[in-house]
Amino acid sequence: MSKISYPVIILNYKNYEQTIGRRGLALSKIAEEVAIESGISIAVCPQTADIYLIAQEVDIPVLAQHVDANNTGSYTGNNLIETLKEAGAIGSLVNHSEHRLKLADIESVIQKSKKLDFYTCVCSNNIQTSKAIASLEPAACAMEPPELIGSGVSVTTKPELVIQTLSAIKEISSAVQPLVGAGVTTSNDVAEAVQMGAQGVLLASGFVKAKDPKEVLQQMAYALKK
Amino acid sequence: MSKISYPVIILNYKNYEQTIGRRGLALSKIAEEVAIESGISIAVCPQTADIYLIAQEVDIPVLAQHVDANNTGSYTGNNLIETLKEAGAIGSLVNHSEHRLKLADIESVIQKSKKLDFYTCVCSNNIQTSKAIASLEPAACAMEPPELIGSGVSVTTKPELVIQTLSAIKEISSAVQPLVGAGVTTSNDVAEAVQMGAQGVLLASGFVKAKDPKEVLQQMAYALKK
Amino acid sequence: MSKISYPVIILNYKNYEQTIGRRGLALSKIAEEVAIESGISIAVCPQTADIYLIAQEVDIPVLAQHVDANNTGSYTGNNLIETLKEAGAIGSLVNHSEHRLKLADIESVIQKSKKLDFYTCVCSNNIQTSKAIASLEPAACAMEPPELIGSGVSVTTKPELVIQTLSAIKEISSAVQPLVGAGVTTSNDVAEAVQMGAQGVLLASGFVKAKDPKEVLQQMAYALKK
Amino acid sequence: MSKISYPVIILNYKNYEQTIGRRGLALSKIAEEVAIESGISIAVCPQTADIYLIAQEVDIPVLAQHVDANNTGSYTGNNLIETLKEAGAIGSLVNHSEHRLKLADIESVIQKSKKLDFYTCVCSNNIQTSKAIASLEPAACAMEPPELIGSGVSVTTKPELVIQTLSAIKEISSAVQPLVGAGVTTSNDVAEAVQMGAQGVLLASGFVKAKDPKEVLQQMAYALKK
Repeated sequence: MSKISYPVIILNYKNYEQTIGRRGLALSKIAEEVAIESGISIAVCPQTADIYLIAQEVDIPVLAQHVDANNTGSYTGNNLIETLKEAGAIGSLVNHSEHRLKLADIESVIQKSKKLDFYTCVCSNNIQTSKAIASLEPAACAMEPPELIGSGVSVTTKPELVIQTLSAIKEISSAVQPLVGAGVTTSNDVAEAVQMGAQGVLLASGFVKAKDPKEVLQQMAYALKK
Repeated sequence: MSKISYPVIILNYKNYEQTIGRRGLALSKIAEEVAIESGISIAVCPQTADIYLIAQEVDIPVLAQHVDANNTGSYTGNNLIETLKEAGAIGSLVNHSEHRLKLADIESVIQKSKKLDFYTCVCSNNIQTSKAIASLEPAACAMEPPELIGSGVSVTTKPELVIQTLSAIKEISSAVQPLVGAGVTTSNDVAEAVQMGAQGVLLASGFVKAKDPKEVLQQMAYALKK
Repeated sequence: MSKISYPVIILNYKNYEQTIGRRGLALSKIAEEVAIESGISIAVCPQTADIYLIAQEVDIPVLAQHVDANNTGSYTGNNLIETLKEAGAIGSLVNHSEHRLKLADIESVIQKSKKLDFYTCVCSNNIQTSKAIASLEPAACAMEPPELIGSGVSVTTKPELVIQTLSAIKEISSAVQPLVGAGVTTSNDVAEAVQMGAQGVLLASGFVKAKDPKEVLQQMAYALKK
Repeated sequence: MSKISYPVIILNYKNYEQTIGRRGLALSKIAEEVAIESGISIAVCPQTADIYLIAQEVDIPVLAQHVDANNTGSYTGNNLIETLKEAGAIGSLVNHSEHRLKLADIESVIQKSKKLDFYTCVCSNNIQTSKAIASLEPAACAMEPPELIGSGVSVTTKPELVIQTLSAIKEISSAVQPLVGAGVTTSNDVAEAVQMGAQGVLLASGFVKAKDPKEVLQQMAYALKK
């Protein structure tokens, strides 16, 4: 279960207090349970310092929240792909709206990741940047309208935007899995996203801050099984 | 031995291939052995993803290479102090020449670190920036002339610069431990730095890339004992 | 009148629509008139592309809003001190809260500016960063609490913060002129700032967006004459 | 002659000493003379503070070296499209290798530029980023291998790279004019670039630092006429 299959639910832990250290491990255990019982692929994105702890303990894909493009050498404070892999991450989010990268760096990260068999889910913010990212052929492209991130209003309330983006990505490269995110909080949001053509969703507070994260995730996974 | 005492040797692992994962752990075991046998304080700065692994296994201070100033919340890809601490880091390098920060962020990191009892070794690049950093009162300020970093030519070949910087730091705040770094590769470099008034050294390739890292570190620790 | 004298009123035009091109020139003519009639030093900070136009037409100090630290050479898109000077600017704002710089770059800009007789008004955001900046000895340090910028609530509503900051700057270097800014909109705000020890104020919308910019500026200048 | 036609020669003045203020104006007068006598479109990219001076005096297209994506408002130190236009620039370089931008900002600049009829020549560094940029549909995309910039070794010494890039751009959008740059110093380099399919070249030191800039530019323009 260390590879991502589709449809996928990717859980971004951000810097939320509820996800630090052993609390993030507990959430990851929940994600693992739901993944096993539902058969739906669920990946978790802890903070970098928590990757090793979580990857040792759960058998679901662990992604970093950010990765740097540089090679090994005299770089201080960067997250090297080689190191993330050895710590147990199978890939990384790239260019999240809260950690935007220069175009040249997004491209370098994707190229280096391909060579090292490292999964990249590159975030975009509209149709145009989704097309640009799709042309770079990452493993997945997750479109998130910035104004809806953390809003509780789902990206699926903009069906035209979602449908046009997903079809634009597919048209440019069938190798890039199109995902959506922002404001995804209910199983209905997840169901709609997939009905519109998404191969999965990226969410954060909708899971992390839920009163009952397990119940929410079960319902989301169930919505994807239909 | 989880606290830093002075004089100190701080070992920055950067993104060197020789320090990734279990190789970094092996180097940290060497550092621990030398710290125990010499009684000299030695801290290691692994990549963020390696902090947990190393901090579980060695009983010497582990520092991050970079830390972000933000609080918990909607931030993706940042290194939160709270998370680094729970993973086992007692502090962090800040503003290394290879990861320079905005002044306002250096200040925020130092303030937040003080509240959370997190050690900060803030790097500077000349006398002026050392004074500016000293006025922010981090735990330590490590001056490294950028042109000498990784050069093999020790910062101590510029005695006037070192002596003036160290005395400028002390004059501004006796609470800030003055360190130096850049090109430190031999026990003689370490001895000279301390003779000039430094409370310790920051080095990277001089240890990581040494043919016999243990022997080099033993000699350096011995030089500090005299 | 091309040099700044104290007390000074520094007008930051930001990217406000009301200041573009000939509208910025008209505002600068108003500033010149008020400077002449009051005898108070008033400087204007237009956008870089407007510096030449304005500096040719008015006889008051013109400052850039940002300047880069690099020397002449292969740099694209940077604002070189040499070029700003030849275009008519006598100096620049540095590290404004809306354009924060790395500490090492602030220091480089100040050093290079001194060599080229270029005025630097470096912005800070609290007591600590004011002290750090004062230790770098720019011509002036303008403290602006970020949360009050553009708020209409004057920095002088925090008298303790202002008084402590100004005295901290003076203590570190009597060569650095202490200024304050953020939310300054009335002549009373200006009068209070100077009573608290400031050598002048930095303001933007309080002048640019005033119904009658000339009247507002006249009142502010008059408040400084008392 | 204020519009760009193809083939075009775009001259980037960078921060070269030879281009500051009136020296940049003199070089621009040369460019204007050669443009008139040859009938070839030649654009100049002075530093921002020199745009007004040069645009008033020459009748060839003037481009900025960098432009920001933000709208009018509370932004300090940014180059607003509206202001660059009023100062006389008809467009701007974007994402030059010496001033790389985040993907989301490149996209915003292009969209805003289209609305304001502002020309964008967006730089790329390889085939992949050229494709990503072409999908954003700027007016032109100039591919420059970073290692050849300023090297004196022309991009045309890599014919496969050039030909593949140009055809990749054309395939994605026929509306995007494909240009190349880096190391272009002779009329032969220019002739080869156009033979390979480029609609023009971007160069800097090859013109600015030439012993006889006028002669070099005449030969380049002549090479484009054939």
